Amino acid sequence: MNAKQLLEERMPKFVVGVMGQGDGARQEDCAHAESLGEMIAKEQWVLLTGGRNVGVMEAANRGAKRVPGSLTVGILPNRESKASPFADIVIITDMNEARNNINVLSSNVIVACGQVGPGTTSEIALALKADKTVLLLGGTEQAAAFFQDLSAEKIIRVDSAKKAIEIIKSRLHQ
Amino acid sequence: MNAKQLLEERMPKFVVGVMGQGDGARQEDCAHAESLGEMIAKEQWVLLTGGRNVGVMEAANRGAKRVPGSLTVGILPNRESKASPFADIVIITDMNEARNNINVLSSNVIVACGQVGPGTTSEIALALKADKTVLLLGGTEQAAAFFQDLSAEKIIRVDSAKKAIEIIKSRLHQ
Amino acid sequence: MNAKQLLEERMPKFVVGVMGQGDGARQEDCAHAESLGEMIAKEQWVLLTGGRNVGVMEAANRGAKRVPGSLTVGILPNRESKASPFADIVIITDMNEARNNINVLSSNVIVACGQVGPGTTSEIALALKADKTVLLLGGTEQAAAFFQDLSAEKIIRVDSAKKAIEIIKSRLHQ
Amino acid sequence: MNAKQLLEERMPKFVVGVMGQGDGARQEDCAHAESLGEMIAKEQWVLLTGGRNVGVMEAANRGAKRVPGSLTVGILPNRESKASPFADIVIITDMNEARNNINVLSSNVIVACGQVGPGTTSEIALALKADKTVLLLGGTEQAAAFFQDLSAEKIIRVDSAKKAIEIIKSRLHQ
Repeated sequence: MNAKQLLEERMPKFVVGVMGQGDGARQEDCAHAESLGEMIAKEQWVLLTGGRNVGVMEAANRGAKRVPGSLTVGILPNRESKASPFADIVIITDMNEARNNINVLSSNVIVACGQVGPGTTSEIALALKADKTVLLLGGTEQAAAFFQDLSAEKIIRVDSAKKAIEIIKSRLHQ
Repeated sequence: MNAKQLLEERMPKFVVGVMGQGDGARQEDCAHAESLGEMIAKEQWVLLTGGRNVGVMEAANRGAKRVPGSLTVGILPNRESKASPFADIVIITDMNEARNNINVLSSNVIVACGQVGPGTTSEIALALKADKTVLLLGGTEQAAAFFQDLSAEKIIRVDSAKKAIEIIKSRLHQ
Repeated sequence: MNAKQLLEERMPKFVVGVMGQGDGARQEDCAHAESLGEMIAKEQWVLLTGGRNVGVMEAANRGAKRVPGSLTVGILPNRESKASPFADIVIITDMNEARNNINVLSSNVIVACGQVGPGTTSEIALALKADKTVLLLGGTEQAAAFFQDLSAEKIIRVDSAKKAIEIIKSRLHQ
Repeated sequence: MNAKQLLEERMPKFVVGVMGQGDGARQEDCAHAESLGEMIAKEQWVLLTGGRNVGVMEAANRGAKRVPGSLTVGILPNRESKASPFADIVIITDMNEARNNINVLSSNVIVACGQVGPGTTSEIALALKADKTVLLLGGTEQAAAFFQDLSAEKIIRVDSAKKAIEIIKSRLHQ
């Protein structure tokens, strides 16, 4: 490892949080999440999710781990939760839904992937409270309108994983 | 103190959580909150809020403490937060927004009072996740539609503090 | 209610946290806790415990509720925990052992009652970290020496509930 | 990347938590922590610390990052805390001392490095509560005796970083 590599090793890693439904996530939302996970990993960003082995979390982690050298972090609700086998680092909070605040605070930017349930809603809201940018990928018009009303500036709607990555690259990750 | 009183002392107290904006809350929302606090206290229920000395929290606590024998609990975000002087019991969580989950889990029912910002949105969402009923008092059509879409059954819209109390009495507190 | 009573109602309530073993607490430690709870209530202080229906927590709450007008707060680990029937206000944290920090931050002073297990040790340590005074009632010489080594100033050893109350009255509650 | 490497990428990573004083840590304790960090990284284990840029945390992270391919995780108390520049993944909990429980739950084994203050005491106690093994490297006889009294089985005293690694290899990581 040369000096340049050493330096890169030490640079703070850019973390993208992907949030979405666990049990009961729609197939198309998981497909989006899987693409997103893969693209995040290709950018050498860290993928952060709620860490469970279901739904959007699992799909995003699976996508990321297709990429050699990828790094995935899962923030688990409790000690009994089953972790995604594709999460490299598993943080066990044992504080259940209150861990949603940790998910968003530990991410540089958040992508809410697909249909938004109560858990994801709390994460988007906590992200806005923490002044983070949230990209909505898919989801209903109604949800988008509601969140944009909470913060016109911090909510960005996108229609593909590719577009999400482009926006993160151009506007957030410098 | 006779046997009946002793028994009453021991019965689990019914807790109503009142959530809403802190800094920047609208005057009309605070007026609603103050009425609500007073009516909750008159029913001999416990008022629970986020505990700070501003906005909807402060107004609800002030209303409740007009009633002799009332009991108010404030769940403060951190050690530096200024507590409402009308909060009898102050719980210091030092976990900032993650305390929102404690607010809803410790309440039997939640009333979201007035315009809904990111903090209150997270509380309503966490309440639904915990299978609690949430009454929306005031707030926009758009917010109501969004939350009812998350849970048609658990979200009830009301237009006055009085109506909120009636619904809690008839449907939830038995 | 006259002006003086109203004022008193509004004065911040003084909270004494009583910590100790749950399951497996020794009978003598529970006896101490019960006396302590009763004496705390007689001083019109609020009793705060970990809220479960076993051991030192249950005994302290039972003692307090013998006193008319007493007020007891229990900070429960999670939604499945069984609350003491003698806890008036039950705060559900759903964050398991991490709630120990809330127990100590929300108390003006802490009494560790009896033999000290891992849970109580974490509470004493967190109390010292938060610059709170901790009274050790009972417990081993070894534990007392260890904690006094952590903070000579903040750890006070006492041999009875009565003595604990006296010290709190004279040195802490003014 | 061949099949074997892919598989290895997917195997759950073994995490060693190194805990100890932040501000005011002794120089010798930091020296131990730095060796420990380096040795943990050489075993290809993940190093987990409280994440701040001082004391034992900083030293352990610095040691680990001397090793190419190492991975370090820091669990920060709050949004204002300064992270170690040698922490690859920074988890922001914003729950201050309550994050100590996350530190221990997310580690497979804990090494308490050097003199034990209140924060580290809470972590050792929470680790025992969670049934984790804790190695004490350095520290006083008195502290060791106290913790061994809490759990004879889970507390292991060692006198060097090398010995700590040997014990983890032989008894815990298989």
